[in-house]
Amino acid sequence: MSQEAQNVLVIGGVACGPKTAARVKRLQPKANVTLIEKTGNVSFGACGIPYYLEGHCESVDTLYETPVGVKRTPDFFQKTKGFTVQVNTEAQSIDRENKQVKVKDHSSGQERDMAYDKLVLATGSRPFVPPIPGIDKQNIWSIKSSEDAEGVAASIDPPEGKKAVIIGAGLIGVEMAEALKQRGMEVTIVEMFDQIMPQILDYDLATLAAKHIRSNGVNLALGEQVVGFTGQDKVTGVQTKNTTFDADVVIVSVGVRPNDELAREAGLECHPKGGIRINCHGQTSDPEIYAGGDCAINDSILSYLCAELYVPLGSTANKHGRVIANHICGQTTPFSGVMSTSICKVFGMTLGRTGISHKQAENLGYQVESALWTGPDKPHYMPDGGPISIKLVASKRNRALLGAQVLGTGDAAKRLDVATAAVHFKANLDDVGAIDISYAPPFSPPIDPLITASHVLTNKMDGLANGLLPMQAKEIMDSGKDIILLDVRTPQEFAAMRMPDDRVVHIPLGQLRERLQELPKDKDILAFCKVSMRGYEAQRVLQDAGFDRVWFIEGGLVGWPFEVEMSG
Amino acid sequence: MSQEAQNVLVIGGVACGPKTAARVKRLQPKANVTLIEKTGNVSFGACGIPYYLEGHCESVDTLYETPVGVKRTPDFFQKTKGFTVQVNTEAQSIDRENKQVKVKDHSSGQERDMAYDKLVLATGSRPFVPPIPGIDKQNIWSIKSSEDAEGVAASIDPPEGKKAVIIGAGLIGVEMAEALKQRGMEVTIVEMFDQIMPQILDYDLATLAAKHIRSNGVNLALGEQVVGFTGQDKVTGVQTKNTTFDADVVIVSVGVRPNDELAREAGLECHPKGGIRINCHGQTSDPEIYAGGDCAINDSILSYLCAELYVPLGSTANKHGRVIANHICGQTTPFSGVMSTSICKVFGMTLGRTGISHKQAENLGYQVESALWTGPDKPHYMPDGGPISIKLVASKRNRALLGAQVLGTGDAAKRLDVATAAVHFKANLDDVGAIDISYAPPFSPPIDPLITASHVLTNKMDGLANGLLPMQAKEIMDSGKDIILLDVRTPQEFAAMRMPDDRVVHIPLGQLRERLQELPKDKDILAFCKVSMRGYEAQRVLQDAGFDRVWFIEGGLVGWPFEVEMSG
Repeated sequence: MSQEAQNVLVIGGVACGPKTAARVKRLQPKANVTLIEKTGNVSFGACGIPYYLEGHCESVDTLYETPVGVKRTPDFFQKTKGFTVQVNTEAQSIDRENKQVKVKDHSSGQERDMAYDKLVLATGSRPFVPPIPGIDKQNIWSIKSSEDAEGVAASIDPPEGKKAVIIGAGLIGVEMAEALKQRGMEVTIVEMFDQIMPQILDYDLATLAAKHIRSNGVNLALGEQVVGFTGQDKVTGVQTKNTTFDADVVIVSVGVRPNDELAREAGLECHPKGGIRINCHGQTSDPEIYAGGDCAINDSILSYLCAELYVPLGSTANKHGRVIANHICGQTTPFSGVMSTSICKVFGMTLGRTGISHKQAENLGYQVESALWTGPDKPHYMPDGGPISIKLVASKRNRALLGAQVLGTGDAAKRLDVATAAVHFKANLDDVGAIDISYAPPFSPPIDPLITASHVLTNKMDGLANGLLPMQAKEIMDSGKDIILLDVRTPQEFAAMRMPDDRVVHIPLGQLRERLQELPKDKDILAFCKVSMRGYEAQRVLQDAGFDRVWFIEGGLVGWPFEVEMSG
Repeated sequence: MSQEAQNVLVIGGVACGPKTAARVKRLQPKANVTLIEKTGNVSFGACGIPYYLEGHCESVDTLYETPVGVKRTPDFFQKTKGFTVQVNTEAQSIDRENKQVKVKDHSSGQERDMAYDKLVLATGSRPFVPPIPGIDKQNIWSIKSSEDAEGVAASIDPPEGKKAVIIGAGLIGVEMAEALKQRGMEVTIVEMFDQIMPQILDYDLATLAAKHIRSNGVNLALGEQVVGFTGQDKVTGVQTKNTTFDADVVIVSVGVRPNDELAREAGLECHPKGGIRINCHGQTSDPEIYAGGDCAINDSILSYLCAELYVPLGSTANKHGRVIANHICGQTTPFSGVMSTSICKVFGMTLGRTGISHKQAENLGYQVESALWTGPDKPHYMPDGGPISIKLVASKRNRALLGAQVLGTGDAAKRLDVATAAVHFKANLDDVGAIDISYAPPFSPPIDPLITASHVLTNKMDGLANGLLPMQAKEIMDSGKDIILLDVRTPQEFAAMRMPDDRVVHIPLGQLRERLQELPKDKDILAFCKVSMRGYEAQRVLQDAGFDRVWFIEGGLVGWPFEVEMSG
């Protein structure tokens, strides 16, 4: 480590920037560390905007604060972390040869040069604004800055009965839908794809999640392409190819784009689709210049993906910051990359994904198998349990776990993060089944749902479990074939909720061995129950009795993303 | 796989037994599978007893039921799983040469022989009843069977104002304490060791947990050895070496012992301290005889432990059952062993451990380092966050993660189980810090607590963070040395809660760089804050200014297991 004080210049004051600057000062107290930020504020927690709008914070200032309520100002950073912050200061260009950055002070309008030994680009991202005519009308907002947050808050006040249209059903879109619905608004999400969260969930889980969101009163308009906006100055509606949705306020949440222009203009290598390329130490193609956070594109830890991943998240930005600061200070701690883990909560339901989806795995040419398990997250005698669904995706070749998707009002997040660790450590399905996941009734049934899910997929690969994903079952049902839908639940359960199809035959599992003669051997039989543990048992019972065209529907009725018939 | 139908005999009807039997029938529908159970009932969920007694179930029958409310009777197993269950049937001895088991039918009193091709011992465990005079008095209960559950329920009815004494502050002891306290009883836990959960937590976390349990009105009598009981037929008190605790009911929860006598008498290899020895397929020293669940002793997945572990848990019993059934049916799926993961919830606080504790690691001769991190489980603007503490234990030699302990009213269980996966996959601290744990505000701050904890320990090993575990700090404080306790919190925080020690100096972190002259360089300075992120910053600031006798107290005031002074 050099004894001479380094000049470290950091551009960008949200997550990666302050993290890098603070860590450099801790590692090398003598280093001269300056952070410049083009806006007037630093360390804004944009992830909190939906929760601010839902009413969890008194003021948007909360999103600038430390956990004990101290606002993160330039003075705060100087006094507690020991580095200098210059706000309203925007980098104009990088002179790599002379190692200096031309900056403009927006307060004075003056330009000046700032020298660096190490430069850190943490310029972040900006919301993508699609070039739709009229998108610059008033009350059309992206969700990124505190001005956005306050603008939305002002434009919906008072919210009761007002109409919000959200364009894009990704993470921010569904979080915003919940926030605005909770404030009493009429909310519609317009999504171009035929499912929500197309980048995150497979169609089956996305459709199950959509059912939940709709049941909470949000209107989902899927497969609708926005072509324009009505209204004079202020927006009054969102026009799609098919219809128009009235709107008092419009939220545009169709993704973000990396702020990589400064790097591109300086000749640093960037991804053709956007994002500064970095190595595992956060170095760009110029080793004296680092980049991290939303402006950079990540290597994936998933060797099977063989692709750079643009997954802009505060968690990754902070990891980058630490790795960069360490490397600047002579401590090499390479970053292994991201795994595309995503999560959100909407109306009490957790949705998440790690690794790759079934669809992605197929697109990569994998021989892929996946299975959906649905069931309670705790023993039935615990009062606060809830159902969760887990879909595991694995390679048929070596049973490597490629990804996991979760959903549910139960504790789905824990199972997602254990799966994340399993994918990180290149586990196969047998490994997952062996993890000594903690067990006590307030936390899980004796066999943890993640372990059960690994068993179902293992059984499927071993040819024991003839499981059909809900989509596969639906396709067979919709083909009009003369099949049997065998419901093996108890009479009480059958009375309360049913599959709305006149091909349903109801034989409780406990009676199945005695009533085999009621079933034909020359028709396809699709067995199911509430969550399909009994559906699987029924398949095994029937096969044992010589039926060879038997399947069960994975996830059962709780995991069924389509219509069910309820009584009473 | 043999085409001839195997005779599989399973002894024991709680967890491992039924799991093995059901799985064998699914894998080999033609196999003759019989399960015998010495009591009149099968599949009792003993883990649910505290929750039944707390009032979560209408009847103890709930603990025999499937998640959809079907009672698991012999008929249930025959009809849905296809194997035969004979209750009130107790194995007397095993004739290994002739491959048959002598059994006694308790209904008829008759004995008979049952032949087997494969025998599975799933004989479970029984509560350890210490040989204390008077322990056979009425209203002294162990917690194992449905009779115990109903007995306790009857003996406390009505519970309000009655006194319960619980002997043993392990998992079941604290779960029972909560259950009986919630029912309105006066509850005392008597524990021989000077901490709760001596097998699970280090002293510091145990003491923090004890503070929480006491604050919920349970009396903890630590370091008290029980020597007798008062009362004629019915117990009226528990006598220790020092005092007597009045008691209307006594719960004895000082551990369980494996039911390995049948195996021992048959000459199967057992551990000297109890437990049938099995290999990774569940085979005993006789390859035709398997054992699993609470009667068996496990290999540990932790190569660094080099020891067999007796950790009787329903989760492990089910894993055993699957591995045994697979092996019986020609599918080899070796079990990698257990990691000693334990968890419980008491008055809303989660307590858990995986791998080994600091104390255990030291006893094994490791150069061990550990660090305690305390902080919120979610961003401060989320309404439902809570504090959690994470203590990580690692080898100084190679930074291998050896274990993790967690505690908190926030979501500590998730961090425990990710750590469990990390230990399973032999992660080092840098690996842990790189896991792409899911991030969104309803689930975690941008840097997940587990990742932060790994950073603290890494910083400590790198000599950056001069952290002291609470116990180490307390020892220095108690030594009477002329030290400075530097509280760097805000004035508002200081007004609300303080360390009760007249050596405290209060300088908010933001003023520290300007007020350095108020601190002496010739005294040891122990800095702290609410959770000690700022304590760590203060240590760095002071070192930077030439103070070389500076430490910070890990976990801060939230993680401080001893007395603090509150205002108002």
